[in-house]
Amino acid sequence: MVIVIQCADQIGLVAKISSLLAEERFNILSMHEHVDKTADLFFMRLEVDKQSNGSLEQKLHELLPQNAIVKVNPNPEKKVIVMVTKEYHCLADILVRNYFKTLGASVQCVIGNYTNLEDICKRFDIPFHHVIFNNASPESEKQVLDIIAGYEYDYIVLAKFMRVLSPGFVGRFPQQIINIHHSFLPAFAGANPYKQAYERGVKLIGATAHFVTDELDEGPIIAQQIISASHSLTANDMMKAGKEIETAVLAKALRMVFDDRVFIYKNKTVVLE
Amino acid sequence: MVIVIQCADQIGLVAKISSLLAEERFNILSMHEHVDKTADLFFMRLEVDKQSNGSLEQKLHELLPQNAIVKVNPNPEKKVIVMVTKEYHCLADILVRNYFKTLGASVQCVIGNYTNLEDICKRFDIPFHHVIFNNASPESEKQVLDIIAGYEYDYIVLAKFMRVLSPGFVGRFPQQIINIHHSFLPAFAGANPYKQAYERGVKLIGATAHFVTDELDEGPIIAQQIISASHSLTANDMMKAGKEIETAVLAKALRMVFDDRVFIYKNKTVVLE
Amino acid sequence: MVIVIQCADQIGLVAKISSLLAEERFNILSMHEHVDKTADLFFMRLEVDKQSNGSLEQKLHELLPQNAIVKVNPNPEKKVIVMVTKEYHCLADILVRNYFKTLGASVQCVIGNYTNLEDICKRFDIPFHHVIFNNASPESEKQVLDIIAGYEYDYIVLAKFMRVLSPGFVGRFPQQIINIHHSFLPAFAGANPYKQAYERGVKLIGATAHFVTDELDEGPIIAQQIISASHSLTANDMMKAGKEIETAVLAKALRMVFDDRVFIYKNKTVVLE
Amino acid sequence: MVIVIQCADQIGLVAKISSLLAEERFNILSMHEHVDKTADLFFMRLEVDKQSNGSLEQKLHELLPQNAIVKVNPNPEKKVIVMVTKEYHCLADILVRNYFKTLGASVQCVIGNYTNLEDICKRFDIPFHHVIFNNASPESEKQVLDIIAGYEYDYIVLAKFMRVLSPGFVGRFPQQIINIHHSFLPAFAGANPYKQAYERGVKLIGATAHFVTDELDEGPIIAQQIISASHSLTANDMMKAGKEIETAVLAKALRMVFDDRVFIYKNKTVVLE
Repeated sequence: MVIVIQCADQIGLVAKISSLLAEERFNILSMHEHVDKTADLFFMRLEVDKQSNGSLEQKLHELLPQNAIVKVNPNPEKKVIVMVTKEYHCLADILVRNYFKTLGASVQCVIGNYTNLEDICKRFDIPFHHVIFNNASPESEKQVLDIIAGYEYDYIVLAKFMRVLSPGFVGRFPQQIINIHHSFLPAFAGANPYKQAYERGVKLIGATAHFVTDELDEGPIIAQQIISASHSLTANDMMKAGKEIETAVLAKALRMVFDDRVFIYKNKTVVLE
Repeated sequence: MVIVIQCADQIGLVAKISSLLAEERFNILSMHEHVDKTADLFFMRLEVDKQSNGSLEQKLHELLPQNAIVKVNPNPEKKVIVMVTKEYHCLADILVRNYFKTLGASVQCVIGNYTNLEDICKRFDIPFHHVIFNNASPESEKQVLDIIAGYEYDYIVLAKFMRVLSPGFVGRFPQQIINIHHSFLPAFAGANPYKQAYERGVKLIGATAHFVTDELDEGPIIAQQIISASHSLTANDMMKAGKEIETAVLAKALRMVFDDRVFIYKNKTVVLE
Repeated sequence: MVIVIQCADQIGLVAKISSLLAEERFNILSMHEHVDKTADLFFMRLEVDKQSNGSLEQKLHELLPQNAIVKVNPNPEKKVIVMVTKEYHCLADILVRNYFKTLGASVQCVIGNYTNLEDICKRFDIPFHHVIFNNASPESEKQVLDIIAGYEYDYIVLAKFMRVLSPGFVGRFPQQIINIHHSFLPAFAGANPYKQAYERGVKLIGATAHFVTDELDEGPIIAQQIISASHSLTANDMMKAGKEIETAVLAKALRMVFDDRVFIYKNKTVVLE
Repeated sequence: MVIVIQCADQIGLVAKISSLLAEERFNILSMHEHVDKTADLFFMRLEVDKQSNGSLEQKLHELLPQNAIVKVNPNPEKKVIVMVTKEYHCLADILVRNYFKTLGASVQCVIGNYTNLEDICKRFDIPFHHVIFNNASPESEKQVLDIIAGYEYDYIVLAKFMRVLSPGFVGRFPQQIINIHHSFLPAFAGANPYKQAYERGVKLIGATAHFVTDELDEGPIIAQQIISASHSLTANDMMKAGKEIETAVLAKALRMVFDDRVFIYKNKTVVLE
């Protein structure tokens, strides 16, 4: 069973928490904690060897500073909705892991801006909804919201959904939308990052998985990775090479999020691997 | 002997050049070429097994398109001036390689904004000049220019010279000033990149070696590298961890430049490793 | 159109080849060459802008040293057979790329040691053959040979086929069988490399794609990659983490091979990327 | 102040230790722990905000299982002796960090098998002793032991000391000798690892820092790193490229050891970064 805690820092927190768990006869299988001294915040993720009898969350709250966020056994069967445009690589990776039950969540449906990815969804028995989507168009967003309303979900994954969502849309799903951006943010935010990278002549290209907030490509970063890019790559070559790390970075970010290892504060994340 | 060529692209250039070298009885030890199709430019670096009798450069010019840049046996004994502020890591690496004759150039002198690095220069018998330097102050730059005037040099290396040079100063040394910037440019240009990186919550930090142009941190990039940076690093930890890659990236860039492997065009570089 | 050449080294080879191509009005789009001085061998891969009229291969042979290997437009529609045991990650990656026509080859069938991967093959309309396979058992190998005989193929890919093939079997497919081994070869050849790695306490774990020869895990290496592995990983965690790079390394090796970038000599490869 | 603990694992250890520290009014600045479930061992490193009044070590022993290893404020001013042959890169890096007081230890003397590194030691005011050293020769080892006897030291660093030490010699300094080996161990143990790597045709080359035990290149690994190595590198090129990571890996390992982050058990290390 997983326990996650986020609260104001205090002397003796680890002692208090671990003493309570010892009293309650939980054996700690793994414990990761982090303290941000400048923000005075404490973060902890624990794995213990048995399920809670139910009162543990309450007992933890009694121990901890006010306004602590405590999750005992956070939803272990997470559900996700995936949004895509035309590129298949991130989606296919998600569908494969979903099929083999190694995603850490189950895919409820895919919403696509084109129909070219409908067939692969069908091959994996995942419902596909086609919505013609112009950037932040109210009509398109309305259609998407109607579709989403028909499903249960914990997260919405933008798996190369190359459209901008309106602040209104994003605001409905705080800390729930995860995007993969094809650059090493904050470099090359916005459109055509590979073209920007090519023109700037960088020697490395990257990919960034992040939570989506009101500000385009400015949300809390979950994972990043880069590969080298010599002068011999055109913008198009960069795009091809980049797909491999986009897939890898998004996969890693989802694993971390679905495994309750990611904490958000001050437009940043703590990732307790 | 090294030969470098940069010219407009044309069908048959490789055939022409390699035929000429075969006729002149040069054996090609290594040949690297690159064509930028969008810019229609051809770049080549050759190593051949003997010294030129002198007429080779002329013969190459006759073969090649107009305005070709051809260097046969470019200065093999390059000289450099190093500018520093307080941090020692890049300077010490350069001094050590210089002392063991593996730098690919010889250090003429060091100009420092503080005196704390004077002693290590003396230990390696390298002249040290102290100039109190405020950003782009005409007086300081004048003093630096006066010192530089007393030396021969091919390149000026800013080895953590944490001051801004004026366009007037930079303009005197086109394609001759090499800087190490402590971020993955174009992210976090300007002052305090580690603080910026910390605040943005990036998961990787980087370093960039580049030629200096009028625009701050906007010149052609020669080499870049990154290391991972988890949430557990403070801005100060990032600074410490970053020093290791700053040293490595600058060393690599200098090796490439001093070895005549770097070509500049359109605010980019081609690096024929 | 692709041209690949492997032959004894000689002064003027590049000149001869590029002159012939210029005469024949081929425009060279890319050219990569390598000379192994110790083995006195020359390797070249060219991309030119039009199809051959047919006589080019003959003309190249006339130019080049005896026994040169020359392939003009090597089979651009390669066919592969994939062999698997139980693990899905490499196979699924291959099936997805095959389906989206980005594999660079087409999968003819999958031969599996268990039936658990049959369903995903069917979902992608790929024939699946089940063969109970004990290490190098003549009966099992006979069954596999019979199945293979029913297909056209250029390569056999062992996508986590965790069984040993006999020298007799391997000998029938020289330079045609590609394996992914889950260690940084030559470290941890043979069975249970992650267990071996865990017990040795290494700080990095790797994966190696290589051609299969008579000697187990000793064939020419095509690609390798590593990820860091702290003390906190159990052998089982290493196995999980390793799957990601196994998939990536095999994908890269296949891309290189199917794109005619890999040359074999002296139990090594030259990979002209 | 640093506290390190290594003992048999037990339920509630974290609670006990952190409660004791809270009682004693230590504020925990950082805490890293690791449990090896298969070995049933518990490892912890703590940084607290004030010096001990002296009784803390005793109190910890009372809390912890028998035979616990507890170090409160382990020697914060470590001393090291460095042994070298001819190559300068690791030694120079150590001398520079020592000079700028960022090594985490102070270099007492250097013992060299040749005299070519004597001058750089003198430039940094470090005593240099020349000992002609044949592999495991009793006379040479006797000379080294006599020199060592004249200094205080916590560790002996083999900074490219390309000679084999006898088990008798090694046995006198358990867990005190740190070596840098120029391969990705366990691949290419023994002599000429770059030549071995070149002949095997690997696509990555590595370096390994490890504690020295009786068995050549078989001791507990502290840190490893790799760089890519294409077919274009000769054995000699690999050696040159490898120097950069040898320097980096040894520097990292020393930082971890001198900072009391490395625990040894079962021929492995736990590195609590």
